Amino acid sequence: MGTAHDYARVFNALGDPTRRVIVERVSEGPVSVSDLAKPLKMTLAAVVQHIQVLEASGLVRTRKVGRVRTCSLRAKGFAPATDWMAARKSLWEKKLDRLGALLDEEE
Amino acid sequence: MGTAHDYARVFNALGDPTRRVIVERVSEGPVSVSDLAKPLKMTLAAVVQHIQVLEASGLVRTRKVGRVRTCSLRAKGFAPATDWMAARKSLWEKKLDRLGALLDEEE
Repeated sequence: MGTAHDYARVFNALGDPTRRVIVERVSEGPVSVSDLAKPLKMTLAAVVQHIQVLEASGLVRTRKVGRVRTCSLRAKGFAPATDWMAARKSLWEKKLDRLGALLDEEE
Repeated sequence: MGTAHDYARVFNALGDPTRRVIVERVSEGPVSVSDLAKPLKMTLAAVVQHIQVLEASGLVRTRKVGRVRTCSLRAKGFAPATDWMAARKSLWEKKLDRLGALLDEEE
């Protein structure tokens, strides 16, 4: 984590509806991979791939205890995406302020 | 806007690197569709499609004056995504608090 493109990995991860469902479920507490897979209409291999994308994005961490792999939310993993959006919003508001100042000058 | 799944449209929109570039550019001020298209290595039709996805997500608004269509950021369009992430983070933190309380009881 910490590179310039973390937000790209987070947005790519959250751009998929299955991965958003996984993030919603792990937000309520740690879940085993097999419990995560049960309601999802896809193979376990496909679920594992989605979890790997989430892990690489920094949104989920997994831990293996014995034969059970458990997924947890990594809540600070959202930060690159929220920071990116806040920065865009801030740039836009500064632009609006400058436009407002120009209009004031013309009055 | 205002339905339960606005966040899905925003995340789907931002899950694409070209659409993130478009959002970055319009954040710096209104841009015509043809100026937006210039540095992008794709057809104008493809750029227009990306803009339509961004418009449907609530992140961009467009306005046609004469023959020029201009794109602007709709900064409040980020809110469904930031709200969704804040809600997941909040659920997770409550879960951690409950786990912490359980551990305290066991001491």
